[in-house]
Amino acid sequence: GASSAGSSDADVDEVEAMMGKQIYMVSDGTGWTAEHSVNAALGQFEHCLVDRGCPVNTHLFSGIDDVERLIEIVKQAAKAGAMLVYTLADPSMAESARQACNLWGVPSADVLGPITEAIAAHLGVSPSGLPRGAPGRNFPLSEEYFRRIEAIEFTIKQDDGALPQNLHKADIILAGVSRTGKTPLSIYLAQKGYKVANVPIVMGVNMPKTLFEVDPEKVFGLTINPVVLQTIRKARAKTLGFSEESRSNYSEMDYVREELEYAGKIFAQNPSWPIIEVTAKAIEETAAIVFRLYHDRRQKYAMPRISKLY
Amino acid sequence: GASSAGSSDADVDEVEAMMGKQIYMVSDGTGWTAEHSVNAALGQFEHCLVDRGCPVNTHLFSGIDDVERLIEIVKQAAKAGAMLVYTLADPSMAESARQACNLWGVPSADVLGPITEAIAAHLGVSPSGLPRGAPGRNFPLSEEYFRRIEAIEFTIKQDDGALPQNLHKADIILAGVSRTGKTPLSIYLAQKGYKVANVPIVMGVNMPKTLFEVDPEKVFGLTINPVVLQTIRKARAKTLGFSEESRSNYSEMDYVREELEYAGKIFAQNPSWPIIEVTAKAIEETAAIVFRLYHDRRQKYAMPRISKLY
Ligand SMILES: Nc1ncnc2c1ncn2[C@@H]1O[C@H](COP(=O)(O)O)[C@@H](O)[C@H]1O
Ligand SMILES: Nc1ncnc2c1ncn2[C@@H]1O[C@H](COP(=O)(O)O)[C@@H](O)[C@H]1O
Ligand SMILES: [Mg+2]
Ligand SMILES: [Mg+2]
Repeated sequence: GASSAGSSDADVDEVEAMMGKQIYMVSDGTGWTAEHSVNAALGQFEHCLVDRGCPVNTHLFSGIDDVERLIEIVKQAAKAGAMLVYTLADPSMAESARQACNLWGVPSADVLGPITEAIAAHLGVSPSGLPRGAPGRNFPLSEEYFRRIEAIEFTIKQDDGALPQNLHKADIILAGVSRTGKTPLSIYLAQKGYKVANVPIVMGVNMPKTLFEVDPEKVFGLTINPVVLQTIRKARAKTLGFSEESRSNYSEMDYVREELEYAGKIFAQNPSWPIIEVTAKAIEETAAIVFRLYHDRRQKYAMPRISKLY
Repeated sequence: GASSAGSSDADVDEVEAMMGKQIYMVSDGTGWTAEHSVNAALGQFEHCLVDRGCPVNTHLFSGIDDVERLIEIVKQAAKAGAMLVYTLADPSMAESARQACNLWGVPSADVLGPITEAIAAHLGVSPSGLPRGAPGRNFPLSEEYFRRIEAIEFTIKQDDGALPQNLHKADIILAGVSRTGKTPLSIYLAQKGYKVANVPIVMGVNMPKTLFEVDPEKVFGLTINPVVLQTIRKARAKTLGFSEESRSNYSEMDYVREELEYAGKIFAQNPSWPIIEVTAKAIEETAAIVFRLYHDRRQKYAMPRISKLY
């Protein structure tokens, strides 16, 4: 049976009870789909998560492609009072998960089963039932694969205003003052296959000329609430330590406000750049807005959408 | 009603029929959850996708938080013969989607509804029903948020062997010859909050001393099949053009084999580094393996898992 190394089951139960409710996630692949879905679903319980009395603990079991390990995990879930969220491509594995959960009273949810069935009916094609990475499946080095890697490498090289002579090669250019999230946003967009350059706006420093020579349709300005920006900059100055703190006005309120006003003037002079307010938005939320605007400008559908051919 | 700008419905139907089957994805948030799930589910139909006779076209509609736009999209889906995959936090929006799909005969799948219900029952707490980004929800600048951004910034600075004096600050160090995917893998891991450094192995170039001074438990070697590596390097040399092609042996088979053997010797001298074979693996698959090994080494559970507290 499954027991934690070096401690009795009683100890384990105690510790896990203290940590709150358990969610076990099982995948025959990477587990990222289950994790992503559980993450989004947990957004619906933010009002009661950490600091509010209903902590949740997730446990990801990836690469589970044999029924013995699967059953062991379900048994362990039963012991821990956990629920099970799973993505299993092989129908007999999915069925085993369902039955074992029923048998041991483990609440469960199949993440992809229902969508896969609906797509199968829609396409009129049966699912392969083969997990990703199953032997025999060959991984095609697709053009899209190379394009994504190139986009990431391009984006890294263009971080923080580097190599302004390459701005014309970017698909998307982000401009904003320090700590508006340009770097993580650039990387997020790059992972979707876009070449991104980001250009800092710093009071008293000239913007690169090339920024005003490229297609303005691909430039996006970022702006943020000054109070929130100050908070972020203070945290940043702490992390960086002395050397950067010597730029003492960096996180001072007057300076923060002035720099944002300076950015606002540049934006006003370039009215075709969309300006995105990033306050209180996670990186992936800002990314969704950038993509929406980017695709709306490039297509003639009546309803804005992002289309992709498989 | 919804009709495509500048073309009759007949035209639209024709074009869309040529493009294959349509999948509409609707979210009140970013749409990334629906996209991720549909992507994974489509993996089950790889045997019949592009080049195999059943092309699929996805259309992502993000930020859909009012019922009018929702209904318009369902109508358009009906016209295009599309199916609808949705994530809608507001129960009345989700119910509207279901009803409109029934009414107009649009096949549909609710991605998060069932998981959210199962989690609600497990926690004994009702879901908020508020979409992300709903007014009033405040976005906490959590420690994890800052940690992730710092990880991305650290990782960018450490790309391609830069700043070897900082290797001790990394959580994870990747070593491998050129084109084993170190850079995109580093970025993928960084987005999950880990500080990653990558160090290229180049025949005839000394590895930085610091690599052998850090905790060997955090170093991972990457290896790859020589034939596949040569294919990737040839594609790379083409993209880079002349300057790099002058390093003419870079993609020659003998050189590729020798360099991989050289890497193999370094790995043999450092037996505590796990070596990961990346051939035929997508970046996120290699990332899952790195995480599994990384967490297995750091915890004492009987069953390997990646745990997270919410
Ligand atoms: N390219 C693919 N081919 C076949 N199955 C896939 C593919 N990508 C993901 N899956 C399946 O989708 C589910 C979620 O994948 P993952 O996000 O890797 O855990 C697992 O059951 C995988 O086996
Ligand atoms: N932090 C969150 N709080 C509340 N709802 C969320 C959160 N994250 C995601 N969601 C919901 O989960 C679904 C998928 O989100 P998304 O991936 O942004 O499309 C949508 O219905 C969102 O409203
Ligand atoms: Mg930056
Ligand atoms: Mg690299």
